[in-house]
Amino acid sequence: MYFESVRPRIPIVGEVPGSLTTPMTPDEFRRHGHALVDWVAEYLAHPERYAVLSRVEPGAITAALPAEAPDLGESFEALFADFERVLVPGLTHWNQPGFMAYFASTASAPGILAELLSAALNQQAMLWRTSPAATELESVTLGWLQRLLGLPDAFSGVIYDTASISTLHALACARERAVPGVRVEGLVGRALPRMRVYASAQAHSSVDKGVMLLGLGQNGLAHVPVDDAFCMRPDALRDAIARDRASGVQPLAVVATLGTTATTSVDPVAAIAEICDAEGLWLHVDAAYAGAAAMLPEQRAHFAGWERADSVVVNPHKWLFTPFDLSAFYTRHPALLRAAFSLVPDYLRTADTEQSRNLMDTGIQLGRRFRALKLWAVLRHFGADGLRDRLAGHIALAQMFADWIDATPGWTRVAPVPFSVVCFRATPADVPDDGLDAFNERIVEAVNATGEVFLSHTRLNGQTVIRLAIGHEGTTAAHVTRAWTLLRETAAGRGTT
Amino acid sequence: MYFESVRPRIPIVGEVPGSLTTPMTPDEFRRHGHALVDWVAEYLAHPERYAVLSRVEPGAITAALPAEAPDLGESFEALFADFERVLVPGLTHWNQPGFMAYFASTASAPGILAELLSAALNQQAMLWRTSPAATELESVTLGWLQRLLGLPDAFSGVIYDTASISTLHALACARERAVPGVRVEGLVGRALPRMRVYASAQAHSSVDKGVMLLGLGQNGLAHVPVDDAFCMRPDALRDAIARDRASGVQPLAVVATLGTTATTSVDPVAAIAEICDAEGLWLHVDAAYAGAAAMLPEQRAHFAGWERADSVVVNPHKWLFTPFDLSAFYTRHPALLRAAFSLVPDYLRTADTEQSRNLMDTGIQLGRRFRALKLWAVLRHFGADGLRDRLAGHIALAQMFADWIDATPGWTRVAPVPFSVVCFRATPADVPDDGLDAFNERIVEAVNATGEVFLSHTRLNGQTVIRLAIGHEGTTAAHVTRAWTLLRETAAGRGTT
Repeated sequence: MYFESVRPRIPIVGEVPGSLTTPMTPDEFRRHGHALVDWVAEYLAHPERYAVLSRVEPGAITAALPAEAPDLGESFEALFADFERVLVPGLTHWNQPGFMAYFASTASAPGILAELLSAALNQQAMLWRTSPAATELESVTLGWLQRLLGLPDAFSGVIYDTASISTLHALACARERAVPGVRVEGLVGRALPRMRVYASAQAHSSVDKGVMLLGLGQNGLAHVPVDDAFCMRPDALRDAIARDRASGVQPLAVVATLGTTATTSVDPVAAIAEICDAEGLWLHVDAAYAGAAAMLPEQRAHFAGWERADSVVVNPHKWLFTPFDLSAFYTRHPALLRAAFSLVPDYLRTADTEQSRNLMDTGIQLGRRFRALKLWAVLRHFGADGLRDRLAGHIALAQMFADWIDATPGWTRVAPVPFSVVCFRATPADVPDDGLDAFNERIVEAVNATGEVFLSHTRLNGQTVIRLAIGHEGTTAAHVTRAWTLLRETAAGRGTT
Repeated sequence: MYFESVRPRIPIVGEVPGSLTTPMTPDEFRRHGHALVDWVAEYLAHPERYAVLSRVEPGAITAALPAEAPDLGESFEALFADFERVLVPGLTHWNQPGFMAYFASTASAPGILAELLSAALNQQAMLWRTSPAATELESVTLGWLQRLLGLPDAFSGVIYDTASISTLHALACARERAVPGVRVEGLVGRALPRMRVYASAQAHSSVDKGVMLLGLGQNGLAHVPVDDAFCMRPDALRDAIARDRASGVQPLAVVATLGTTATTSVDPVAAIAEICDAEGLWLHVDAAYAGAAAMLPEQRAHFAGWERADSVVVNPHKWLFTPFDLSAFYTRHPALLRAAFSLVPDYLRTADTEQSRNLMDTGIQLGRRFRALKLWAVLRHFGADGLRDRLAGHIALAQMFADWIDATPGWTRVAPVPFSVVCFRATPADVPDDGLDAFNERIVEAVNATGEVFLSHTRLNGQTVIRLAIGHEGTTAAHVTRAWTLLRETAAGRGTT
């Protein structure tokens, strides 16, 4: 009989009937694990070995991998050899100091080590009892972060995966508060007015996606005009709300951004909070990138007013040295969040369901990884002062680069630099205006093709703009200097190196 | 001047101006990493050292941790000491063979090692160019899995974090197809009929949450009655649809579950697919747990008809030895998924945006971790045969336990056992019917209090039922036998050990 062949468990994987592959023994796990740790140490210590932006052609990785999974198990060595041979050339190196595209981020050493533990423990913190450690550490670390950021005690935090999901929950809370019975009755076939969410024309696309998913439609989002510094104009917001009210549209929420994605512009959140108060609107503050800077006393002025928000998102995986993904969501209305999302099926109903906080009640995802562990490791290993120093260093580097742009003929800075991102373009006198977009695109491509740094671009006021973003822990003046040299050499060579 | 103090980069963390804490050097990273790898090896090899269900009291972990983040950075040793002292007692040990609650799962050795690499590489695969390796490996591994599962080539896969998010996307696609212009116009203030999604009374709560989030309301979900085996009744589904159509409600989608959460019952998906075809409804198959079993030829009959679905979710983090989180979503309508979710802001528009697949276009989350790496490592290291053997072994163990229940007076099995979960209750002759719920609750509590195993319970037909779920790679006949001994001893001692 089948069951009679079941043998006693052997460590790590245990044998199951008829196992065709040899399970990994503890000694093998140690050997492979040590080898990987050594590989990671070398990887982080020697960024010069890698082109920051991957050079593979589309489809090359797919072509280099077998078309089907193997029938028989393969050694970890074989797998790791393919990782190095096929996959590493297909990496764009987010965790290297030459990465200055988008928002540069860092998987720091303590964060990486914490993720190793997280993976091994495989916690699923849907209920307090399914992981008291993950559940309580989440509250503790979010409390630490909250006070470092200067957010009042009235806020309560939850960890999600991404800012897209945090903002989605913020807008779902706004809808829950504004539309009686929406949880049960929904939006369809009811005599409801059209509704509107307001965000600046520079707000993140996740606001659009959230509004679409929630059934409000893209027309349910108004993109409020910005001023010359790409900040939301409170007067334009007030006008948009008034126009909507006059035409029977119900204003729902405002998303103010502290550190927009293109230019890191700072919406005037104090003025916006005034309007939200007066109008009874939910105020969500998207500080996914720049929020970390609120730890710096000298930066706190940018955040004046965010303490009046209904919800705030700050992403430690962006500028707080925490491996991706970890988004910190704070709201003044945790009961409303639970009202929008709590559903306790029978198979999860326990005595402690009533006593303790259960993370499954606070969002769309039932399952939750043990994400708090990496944030805890980062906050403790660096310490608040260590984090502040690094953030201040990044801002200083960006300011240094901005000063160079400002001081150099043929280069133009196109937005203020409140944090660690500089938006600029090459504007040589001998390139006609209508050729500048293509010229700047060629510069970015050529600089990225060197493999030494990776910059991204965006469009502002209809023009192509280059972005240099400081955020990797290892980025120093030497890297920024090198990026500047490459940019100038490329521009002097007229867009090709 | 501030910048003049910027010193050359030192490995791993690099110095930033005025750094107060010493960054972790490569040698320190190696030392701590090796120590953690050794800890994990010991952790997995010696489950007997841990009570499976945590014994901490609510609040104890919070109380044992400092109230605030430290100002000065702490050594990794100090942090790890607190991990062992404070956090480990607060773990419920999902990655141990005595875990037989909910759906047992496994973070296998190759999966854990892959997650270490993932954390260090910190890939963010929003665009192909931001991680060609993560983008292409996702397609390759999902293709491998798709063919192992026997899903036709017409399906196309995406990796999300959880089945909750996969099912949300399935329902969003159904809404996109059924409601013209919903992306732009939304659901509010339009002359739309009420809409309905259908799922069995045993379907997962994520269907409810998805419907709520999408603005359809809980009333927009009909819970179709089940038969004696807890499977959706196609006749009842047909009736519910007819009643809705007669009263002007627009049917939208059906969620059929292969392996429901309470009993792992199998909805008759072929019959349901017929109805969906005839009615023009989106068919989403939730096979989050049981889908892995489709790899076994002898199990394939349970899945007959799922190849006709519009979308399917299978969670490798449930029963495919992959560390949490990784949910595989397949749909026949990838263009519709992109139509519902694609938004390309200027700062992400590149030449390859047009040529290549960009994962950000396929869902609500802009950012994507390098999740494919762990699935790739699992599929290669175990091989298809190795995975099939383990799954067959789990099913055999569950069948063995079910046979014991069936053969033993005073115990009653309350549902069929198609996969690796057994639902049963103690029904001793001398306990009155109205005392059986409390009796079974006491048994579960007492058995869990031993720390040797962790079982969960649910309610079926208004009665408390015990669940024993096999799914951890290390669980063998010895563990199942021990669980059975504890259950019988506890019942004989009348619910307290």
